[in-house]
Amino acid sequence: MHHKVTQESPIGIFDSGIGGLTVVKAIRAALPSERIIYFGDTARVPYGTKSQITIRKYAADNTNILMRYQPKMIIVACNTVSALALDVVEKSCNGIPVIGVLKAGAELAVQVTKNNRIGVIGTQATICSNAYARSIYLLNPNTQVISQACPLFVPLAEEGFIDHPATKLIGHQYLAEIRKQNIDTLVLGCTHYPILRGVIEETVGSDIRIIDSAEAVALKTKELLAESDLLNPVENTFAPHLLVSDLPQKFSTIYQLFMGTELPDVELVEV
Amino acid sequence: MHHKVTQESPIGIFDSGIGGLTVVKAIRAALPSERIIYFGDTARVPYGTKSQITIRKYAADNTNILMRYQPKMIIVACNTVSALALDVVEKSCNGIPVIGVLKAGAELAVQVTKNNRIGVIGTQATICSNAYARSIYLLNPNTQVISQACPLFVPLAEEGFIDHPATKLIGHQYLAEIRKQNIDTLVLGCTHYPILRGVIEETVGSDIRIIDSAEAVALKTKELLAESDLLNPVENTFAPHLLVSDLPQKFSTIYQLFMGTELPDVELVEV
Repeated sequence: MHHKVTQESPIGIFDSGIGGLTVVKAIRAALPSERIIYFGDTARVPYGTKSQITIRKYAADNTNILMRYQPKMIIVACNTVSALALDVVEKSCNGIPVIGVLKAGAELAVQVTKNNRIGVIGTQATICSNAYARSIYLLNPNTQVISQACPLFVPLAEEGFIDHPATKLIGHQYLAEIRKQNIDTLVLGCTHYPILRGVIEETVGSDIRIIDSAEAVALKTKELLAESDLLNPVENTFAPHLLVSDLPQKFSTIYQLFMGTELPDVELVEV
Repeated sequence: MHHKVTQESPIGIFDSGIGGLTVVKAIRAALPSERIIYFGDTARVPYGTKSQITIRKYAADNTNILMRYQPKMIIVACNTVSALALDVVEKSCNGIPVIGVLKAGAELAVQVTKNNRIGVIGTQATICSNAYARSIYLLNPNTQVISQACPLFVPLAEEGFIDHPATKLIGHQYLAEIRKQNIDTLVLGCTHYPILRGVIEETVGSDIRIIDSAEAVALKTKELLAESDLLNPVENTFAPHLLVSDLPQKFSTIYQLFMGTELPDVELVEV
């Protein structure tokens, strides 16, 4: 049995670091009345270059941190955890619903593709897990998935090299093969990648539909809360409650820039 | 009181990940009879973007892991820990000697500079700590230090983008200011950077003397062991004992490529 869940309970969201803020932004746009509790594991970021065993341990830790705040659901904003450890989150959260960015992005891609050829880019761990391809295949066995790991995109995004010639060179190298494969849809399988959306669009061409998993997960969250009669009817004036495992001030600055708000309070928690 | 130290005790070396292998290589070249125990904290790499509090906690954990093997000394192969937490290592190791790459590199730079203008490149945490400048200034107050953080060099080196046009572009951007400053010596203040030495040399010009802290630390280790009568007189035929906190197979492959040996055994330890 899970803790008492009410319409006013918060939505818990976690990510390995700052990338999940794209999900916070999409949730606030789609569901402005919802309370949000966010945890970014900035002491152990990045996850995408680490092993499944380590990622599964971190996924359990992060879920336990969010559970202290008795959320009504959990969103896994980290593609790597969605790919390799969603079951760990489900086992650690006493039966409240869990949505991962991966499945949400896969579902939207399958809905919008016309030629059933879908590209997926992500971290080494996400791509090697083959979880996107498997998830898309389960939704529509006639779909072809072309995958490509882009390991340098996360550090380039974190350094703010958004429109830098080096980012373009690296982007062209990573995406050259995918461009040849006649895809009509490309899933950004890492929450950092929307930050580099400009370079990615320029490289693959404007005729390819880009799927941002953050937007997909916000749509799915709205549906799920409506179905379970768990949408918050009370207008919420609280800013998201922000927790990180390291460098709260740096996170606060990035949050302010990214969300266009006042500098928020960010709480440090130990992992 | 420390554990029983003998001439045949191993040298303990730790780093945040694979970068410290440049130190292992230099120690094996300078001191082929010494036994080595190496720990790479691959579950929590990188350190250079994290806070002092977190780095100090990790430094204590890593020292405790090496202490189980009763080393005769500890080498901190991680510049970030050398800059921000060397005292933590010293407090956790019961009085055995500790050498950090930072001080070794600073000493060698002060010895070789002719015009007393020294450049230092490193991670954000190392450069922001100002530890190189402080250390160099203590050795010679007439020296000018010009510092530059190069945060993308670690991921570029880890991805093997050693001679890539993007690495050259990023290198030129990072090193443009340093080139104008009339330095005659440049300290590679991060153990990953020797991997990108080609690009760095090409960018700053061949008239600048590059200081590789790994070589500096090997020289200093040899001196210290000789002074304390702790050099191993017995010829050692053991390969280094390798420990990591994640992805032992990946580490094994990188070790093989980097050291030009057989594929070694690598042990997984929990942090």
